[in-house]
Formats: sequence, C-alpha cells, structure tokens
Amino acid sequence: MNSKLLGDIVTLKDIKAEKLHNKSHYGKMTDEGLQLSLIEALFLLEKEKITISENSEEVSVDDMIHIIQKKGLFNKYIVFKDLRNRGYIVKTGFKYGSEFRLYERGKSPGNGHSDYLVKVADEDDHIPLSDLSSYVRVAHGVNKYLLFAVVDNENDITYYNVEWTRL
Amino acid sequence: MNSKLLGDIVTLKDIKAEKLHNKSHYGKMTDEGLQLSLIEALFLLEKEKITISENSEEVSVDDMIHIIQKKGLFNKYIVFKDLRNRGYIVKTGFKYGSEFRLYERGKSPGNGHSDYLVKVADEDDHIPLSDLSSYVRVAHGVNKYLLFAVVDNENDITYYNVEWTRL
Amino acid sequence: MNSKLLGDIVTLKDIKAEKLHNKSHYGKMTDEGLQLSLIEALFLLEKEKITISENSEEVSVDDMIHIIQKKGLFNKYIVFKDLRNRGYIVKTGFKYGSEFRLYERGKSPGNGHSDYLVKVADEDDHIPLSDLSSYVRVAHGVNKYLLFAVVDNENDITYYNVEWTRL
Amino acid sequence: MNSKLLGDIVTLKDIKAEKLHNKSHYGKMTDEGLQLSLIEALFLLEKEKITISENSEEVSVDDMIHIIQKKGLFNKYIVFKDLRNRGYIVKTGFKYGSEFRLYERGKSPGNGHSDYLVKVADEDDHIPLSDLSSYVRVAHGVNKYLLFAVVDNENDITYYNVEWTRL
Repeated sequence: MNSKLLGDIVTLKDIKAEKLHNKSHYGKMTDEGLQLSLIEALFLLEKEKITISENSEEVSVDDMIHIIQKKGLFNKYIVFKDLRNRGYIVKTGFKYGSEFRLYERGKSPGNGHSDYLVKVADEDDHIPLSDLSSYVRVAHGVNKYLLFAVVDNENDITYYNVEWTRL
Repeated sequence: MNSKLLGDIVTLKDIKAEKLHNKSHYGKMTDEGLQLSLIEALFLLEKEKITISENSEEVSVDDMIHIIQKKGLFNKYIVFKDLRNRGYIVKTGFKYGSEFRLYERGKSPGNGHSDYLVKVADEDDHIPLSDLSSYVRVAHGVNKYLLFAVVDNENDITYYNVEWTRL
Repeated sequence: MNSKLLGDIVTLKDIKAEKLHNKSHYGKMTDEGLQLSLIEALFLLEKEKITISENSEEVSVDDMIHIIQKKGLFNKYIVFKDLRNRGYIVKTGFKYGSEFRLYERGKSPGNGHSDYLVKVADEDDHIPLSDLSSYVRVAHGVNKYLLFAVVDNENDITYYNVEWTRL
Repeated sequence: MNSKLLGDIVTLKDIKAEKLHNKSHYGKMTDEGLQLSLIEALFLLEKEKITISENSEEVSVDDMIHIIQKKGLFNKYIVFKDLRNRGYIVKTGFKYGSEFRLYERGKSPGNGHSDYLVKVADEDDHIPLSDLSSYVRVAHGVNKYLLFAVVDNENDITYYNVEWTRL
C-alpha cells in the first residue's frame, strides 16, 4: 500500500505523490506527504493510481465507497469523477460556499484562474431562491461561472450555468 | 377618460391606440379598439399615457393595483414594469410556459425574434429542480435565453440567466 | 442481507444484481455492484426480491418508508410502485422535467423509445397553467405522451393524459 | 333592427331566424322567435348577420362587448368565436359543467353526437386538480373529449386535450 487512510484524509508518501500533485493537482502537499480528500482518494484508487491501507489493512474500492456514501457524499463523488474524466482540475469550493472550483485544461491552481464554481444537487431537490441568490452573488463577486450539477436517479449529471444578469 | 375597464380588459378607442400598438407594441388591436391587459393598463395609467373609467367613474392607480393584487398578479406586474422601463417589448410567454417573452429594443413582435423567456418568481419560492429542467428545456428548444426574475420583499428584482451547459 | 443502504443509495452485489438490471432494468450497474435508488430499493424489498442492511443491521420496509417520507418522496414512490406493478419499466424523467419516463412492456431503455413522461401530483395541488404549458411543450417536443399521475388521500392514483391539440 | 335585446337574451323574429337555427344551429327556437345568447348575438352582430335593438335603440358591437366584458364572459366569447370560425357548432356545455359542447362540421345537435366539451381558462389561472378530476369524469362518462381552451393575454388560444387514462 502506498497511502494511508486516517479519519477523513488519505496520505500518500510514495514517490508518485509529487507527480500527482504538481502535474495533476491532486491533494495538498505537506511535510507528511500528499494529503488527499476521501473523494480524490477513491477516484485515484478506482484508477489504480494508488492503493490505500488503514491500520495496515488494505482499503478496497468498496470500503471507500462505503465511507463516502455513509457521509452522504456520493453525489459529490459522482460529479467529481465526471469532471475529472472531462479533464478538469477539481478542487474544493468551500471558501466560495460551493462543492468545487474548476480549473480548465492547461490552467493550474497555482498560476491559473479558476473559471467555475460547482454546486452539486439532486434531481429531487427544491432550491430556495435565497440560496440561489447567495451562490450566484459569490460566483459573480469572484468572477467565476456558477454551475449547477444536478445528479439524477441514474447518476447522470445535467449541468446548468446560472448567472446574474443586468438586463 | 379615454379607455374603459370591463372585466379583465381595458379597451382604448382613442387616437393614441394605434400608436401605442404599432409603435410601442402594447395590447391587441381589435375592431373594438386596442385591448390592454390589466397589467399593461396599470403601467400606462401610471405613466399617464391613458386614463381609465369603469361605469363612467374614474379608475385610479390604486384601484388598478388593488385589482391586480387580488388576482395574485402583483409580482408579474412589478417585473413587467421593470422590463418595459428598460425598453423591452413585453408579451405573454404562455405558449412557452413562462410569464413573458421579451423583444429587445428595435426588434418587434411582428418581424423580430424574441430573445428571452421570463419566469417570474418570489424570493420566498423554492424551485423544484425538475421544473427548472423543463423551463430550461423549453427555452433551449426554441433558442431563447431563460431569465428568472426574482422579486424580493422590497419589490426589487434580480435577474438570473439559467442555461443548460455541455461542459 | 444481500444489499447495503448507504446514504441515499442501496447497493446490491448479489448474483441477482445482473438479472435485476439486465432483465428488469432496475438501477444502474457500476463496478461496485447494482446501485438502486431508495424508491427502487423499497419496491424490491416489499417484493422480497432483496433484503437491505445498514451498518450490518436489517432495514425493514417501515424503515425505508420512513426515509422516503422524510424526503417528501412518498407520492413518487406510490406512483413508481403502481407503474412497475403494471409492467412498465420506470426510469427518471429528470432531463424532461418530469418524475419518470416509462418504457412499455417489451421495450427496454437500451434499444427502445420511451413513450411516456410522468408528472407526479397530489390531489390537493393546484397546477399553474403556465407550468402545464411547459410540461406539454417538452413532451410534445420529444414525441412522448404526458401523463399526470394524481395521488389522492387514499393513495389511489388517477392518470390523465394531457396533450396539445390543434383543432 | 331584426332582433331585440332583453336582459340576457336576444330574440330574433326575422325570416332569417329559421335558417340561422336549422342550418347553422344558433340559439333556441321558441314561439317568440329564435333566442340567442349574448355571445351568439355578438358573434352574429360582428358578422353582420343580425342587427340588435334595445328599447328601440340600436345596440352596437361595442355595446355588446361592453355587456359581455362586464359579465366576465370575454374569454368565453373569444373561444366561442374561434371555434365557430373553425367551423364547429358551439352550444352551451352547462349540463356537463363546462362552457361549451362542440359538434363537428356536418354533425348537428339534433341527430349528431357532440364530440367535445370545452373548458375555458385564462393563462394566469391555477387549476385545482380536484376540479380537473370532475371535468374529466363528466366528459368520460358521456364519452366526449375534454378540451381546455387557455386564453393568453394576447387573446390567443391554446387547446389541450385532457383525458383519463387506464394504463
């Protein structure tokens, strides 16, 4: 196993860590190694880029999905996976009150500008317009597009761009 | 008084009728004169373009507002007024499942193409995402922008453009 | 127990999974097994086709109903159940702004064409005609029938077909 | 003047009466002559098939529209006019709880079967599903199609056929 699961973080000490971080922009580099979110870790595990252990026991893809579903993060994972597979760099949007911020192909978190904030929703959700208002205001204030990623019951995703308009 | 309120319709026979219709695209021209919706009539009354009578008694702005509020159309009126004041020609969007369709300055309902559909909502509304999906699909299908006009409790309006995005 | 409830998803790894998916078109097949929506899972649980566990404790029919009611999806479940019992394959209609799309006996989501979109409503609902207009327009545009499934206070369902008519 | 307005009824004694009734199926033939509804009378007046007097003063098209709008029957008139102009024979649907029943070209009220019941609605209406239920039940019970005729703010009409469906 080249990475360790501890609580909500998977830490990778492996030689691959630097490449995954510098080239593919996964996780956060620390003195203890590359720290990956559960969602990043599951994605890399499914892609067989990493292996994971917890208390020196192997953590399987199923185990990780189990953890992520229990935390109610599965829709978030579905969207992360789709965006990564489309070639976007996907980082947390927490500071902007959304699930993700996206960097387009080529641009990197370091020097590049994030073009999109992504809100994850479910087909059965009702959106209070007051929430919509805050999402859009934040995105507008930092000059990003707001994407609504709506996950339907077949795990297909429909993306909506919502923006404030001055007529 | 140059127009008459009867039921839900205000009819204008005045010489101004033709200009209001042909030049400003208000109402519907009929053999009996220019028929204005209650919303159009209140707008023109406030602008002092017309005066209104019912049973040969003058109908005031307050009377009209009262009628429109009773019908639950006040938010719709607020949005109509704002859009008209911005120079848009505003016609019903019913056939597209929305409150209004807009024509930009210069373009006319006769020859022009309507660029926007407008859904009117209240700040306290919750929008089921499945409804959002159908509004967006209709707008996309007829190649128009979908605007959400959200009226807040101070009757200020925020406009949001929502569109389907292929990432 | 042959399936696990985690968050909003029930995952079935059992040998039955393939048959339920390929033959009966339930859920979505993934590397981790067959993923069922809460509604599909409750239906199969009631039919005793699956058993469900959460944290290795059995999940009863009542538990599932409780979860679904809390999410305000009970009417949706009632309609799903009725349609499935009538032999239809029932998939999400989100992309069409409705709760479900239906495939008739014999036709399958893979190769067949969905004939119906289903909007779920409650006997106490009032439908704005502008919404009706958008539902009908979407259905018309994709050449499907629009069904209104109205659930009454005894959980009986009445189906109405609504279509645009050129006289 | 060949017809007289008295209250809600216009009575035609003229030679034309028989033809209007037997051939075109307007009004109701009585010993006092052909009794026309206000809506029928306005339609025939606009078509210059009849002239109307009240207290031996001429009643103009405007006067009739005035009366009809005051009674809140204008949408009903708009629909009547459209249906008549499409060649349908249009009689009251009162006994069926709707505005009109229609007879198709060729078929006559006497010997023919009415194919449609017509409910008139306005684009701003919200339909309680319990009302929809009763309209459909009545239409189904007498083996007629139920048409919703929705009049928008430009007096354009969209027709929807609503029927009870056994899946």
